[in-house]
Amino acid sequence: MPFPEPASASLGPKTIRGSFLDFVDDPFYGSEEDSVRYLADGLMVLEAGKIKAFGPFEALQADYGSLPTTAYPERLIMPGFIDTHIHYPQTGMIAAYGEQLLEWLNQYTFPTEAKFQDQDYAREVADIFLDELLRNGTTTALVFAAVFPQSVDAFFEAADRRHLCMIAGKVMMDRHAPDFICDTAASSYEDSKALIQKWHKKGRLHYAVTPRFAITSTDEQLQLAGQLLQEFPDVYLHTHLCENVDEVAWVKELFPHCQGYLDAYDQAGLVTDRSVFAHGVQLTDGEFQRLSEAQSAIAFCPTSNLFLGSGLFKLEQAKSTEYPVKVGLGTDVGAGTSFSMLQTANEAYKVAQLRHQKLSPFKALFLATLGGARALCLENAIGNFEVGKAADFIVLDPRATPLMAFRNGAAAPTSLQELADRAFSLMMMGDDRAVQATYILGELAYENRP
Amino acid sequence: MPFPEPASASLGPKTIRGSFLDFVDDPFYGSEEDSVRYLADGLMVLEAGKIKAFGPFEALQADYGSLPTTAYPERLIMPGFIDTHIHYPQTGMIAAYGEQLLEWLNQYTFPTEAKFQDQDYAREVADIFLDELLRNGTTTALVFAAVFPQSVDAFFEAADRRHLCMIAGKVMMDRHAPDFICDTAASSYEDSKALIQKWHKKGRLHYAVTPRFAITSTDEQLQLAGQLLQEFPDVYLHTHLCENVDEVAWVKELFPHCQGYLDAYDQAGLVTDRSVFAHGVQLTDGEFQRLSEAQSAIAFCPTSNLFLGSGLFKLEQAKSTEYPVKVGLGTDVGAGTSFSMLQTANEAYKVAQLRHQKLSPFKALFLATLGGARALCLENAIGNFEVGKAADFIVLDPRATPLMAFRNGAAAPTSLQELADRAFSLMMMGDDRAVQATYILGELAYENRP
Repeated sequence: MPFPEPASASLGPKTIRGSFLDFVDDPFYGSEEDSVRYLADGLMVLEAGKIKAFGPFEALQADYGSLPTTAYPERLIMPGFIDTHIHYPQTGMIAAYGEQLLEWLNQYTFPTEAKFQDQDYAREVADIFLDELLRNGTTTALVFAAVFPQSVDAFFEAADRRHLCMIAGKVMMDRHAPDFICDTAASSYEDSKALIQKWHKKGRLHYAVTPRFAITSTDEQLQLAGQLLQEFPDVYLHTHLCENVDEVAWVKELFPHCQGYLDAYDQAGLVTDRSVFAHGVQLTDGEFQRLSEAQSAIAFCPTSNLFLGSGLFKLEQAKSTEYPVKVGLGTDVGAGTSFSMLQTANEAYKVAQLRHQKLSPFKALFLATLGGARALCLENAIGNFEVGKAADFIVLDPRATPLMAFRNGAAAPTSLQELADRAFSLMMMGDDRAVQATYILGELAYENRP
Repeated sequence: MPFPEPASASLGPKTIRGSFLDFVDDPFYGSEEDSVRYLADGLMVLEAGKIKAFGPFEALQADYGSLPTTAYPERLIMPGFIDTHIHYPQTGMIAAYGEQLLEWLNQYTFPTEAKFQDQDYAREVADIFLDELLRNGTTTALVFAAVFPQSVDAFFEAADRRHLCMIAGKVMMDRHAPDFICDTAASSYEDSKALIQKWHKKGRLHYAVTPRFAITSTDEQLQLAGQLLQEFPDVYLHTHLCENVDEVAWVKELFPHCQGYLDAYDQAGLVTDRSVFAHGVQLTDGEFQRLSEAQSAIAFCPTSNLFLGSGLFKLEQAKSTEYPVKVGLGTDVGAGTSFSMLQTANEAYKVAQLRHQKLSPFKALFLATLGGARALCLENAIGNFEVGKAADFIVLDPRATPLMAFRNGAAAPTSLQELADRAFSLMMMGDDRAVQATYILGELAYENRP
């Protein structure tokens, strides 16, 4: 599959006209009115892959009206979605039946991931995976590869060809799994180090030190992961935390010298402001507090938490005023059941409802965009339409299916309330079909209607 | 929209060839192996809208091989889905934000349903609704209309034109709702009676006496509903039961002389073997037992129960050996978030997982077909491929999206385990796109690829 460099002509400035929705602040803390930015008729000026200007069409047309433009009437343009937790080797194993976390790993995940020793296979899946992300409007993700370094190479090569902003890392796991999928503490350190030197900050790529979770890493391996964070202070830490009751109990057995699950990571120096922990369903109050102090982030993965029966994440506790924790949304494919961040927001809403909490559409879409960027410390580069940020954005069609077309009118919303209703319909009823186009660095990277 | 009678030529016998999956027994009680019928290469012979013969291609080709045939290679043919609880007037109000049951009714539902006083509008929505059912592979449903008799006329007219087997009724509600949407006990009795006389058993149509729920019906109205069941012993009773904690508490206040929510219906003679109660999330042990004794049915509506935060239905208690209760799946649109029975099965699985129960794909698909037929006392007419039943069936494409195509091979499953995996992928990843064709009485009624 060829990914030619864009023709030089297309690198000149150009504009996108339509209705734009993004966030300039966190609606969990400020008012929604102050957090949401909505331009019913807006213009975005693109140059060299970045946003050069952004504002109401009327205000910008004098300066930029003569540039080549693409108009998207009756659509809603948003920043690309940011998926803060997903496993690319599990693309083909969505819907593996009948187990909760630990059995699911043994029965399905480890055999599937073993196939990624074959770099050709890894390349094939990496391409399918990235196609699927773009089809769903996801432009940045924090990604588990497999234990094999070549699985990371395959992923980063494919992401680099597409000019995507992606974070990934080699899984570190040296116990409690079949030999064919394990490394050693020493080899995981060496392999991760080599991958960091090869890929971290190459183009738009970033590396995440990626121990699978405390159960499959010896204390020695966790300590070496911590050493990597010391040696390379701007790489990420990406792992799982407090997903399932049985998992938490086992971690406590394995780390009797630690005060709890999070502490097993903390004692290895893995709880930092660049650490992203998937799930956190079973977190204690003290652990929420520690994550807040450390400025770590949680990836909330509702479709996965429901699919594996892990439980209901306490979003309102993470987003408390007293101990605020950064939160992004994650699909967690293959335990998650959809690549769509819209469908993920749908089930985030349901998790909140079961807990008698309300997750507003703006809050959910904040988590899927600027909130995700903040969770990944990428808010200076992506996440909203601030001038200077990368032009990674998506065009959503609120009338993508016959049913959505019946529910939603064609006219652009004219009030915050109408916009909220439109946005809510997208997150409850939308899926990949609602993503009409995905742009990467200002270039059309996916379009669902030819 | 014209619905011409099929040309007489097409009424002659013909065949469908492909892989067929249906159920001959209830997999919650017998073994799955004995309940599932799977023909990797099967032939279904259709004549005059019914199944004339059904079996392995090899066995039937001598007798029927010369008939005109339609082949569906690489597909899975199943009985049409049966949705045991849905509100057609709520088609356009899916995704109404932020409330649990009682507030959701006041804020969104009652104003929406008020529009169905206009019969033209009701006709328009009835058409859209039935199109949406067929697009999703649902061939029979138990349907709430609105309080206005003309909303029932509009629905039955549209269903009759399409030759669909449908059950519906006028909502009865004479209190605790705005005047514009209320009837009176006397008018609800008279109007329901006239509708029964007009529509019940006309073609494939059936009538359900439909008090909304105990909160919006006076005891007098419930008694008159019971009188209708006495006068017309083969109509249905369709209502809501024990959905939400606040609702249950209010019913107890309103019916102090009753032992509980179900008893408010029971004392009016509404708990029969033709009664279908939606939800039952909050049922007590005694109420499960009473439903079992009465041979009443429950419509389990997982997307709705999650969307409104009502709670997690105890499916395993309904399907217990000691006090078995008939259960079907319901979408409960518009509190449900999808018309797709596949997506409904997806969330039924998740509800089970949260309760540390396993809902196998065969059990879920049984609920969506033969289980639903039994819940609606229609198992002699629809629900599986028994010879003599109506030829309402659907053609599912296990590779309907790029991701499903990557996960699922093209070859037909060759073992029960492979079939279970294929079926599970359909219920977790499938939606209306997975429904390639829907047949009603042996005629193609919907096709998603021209």
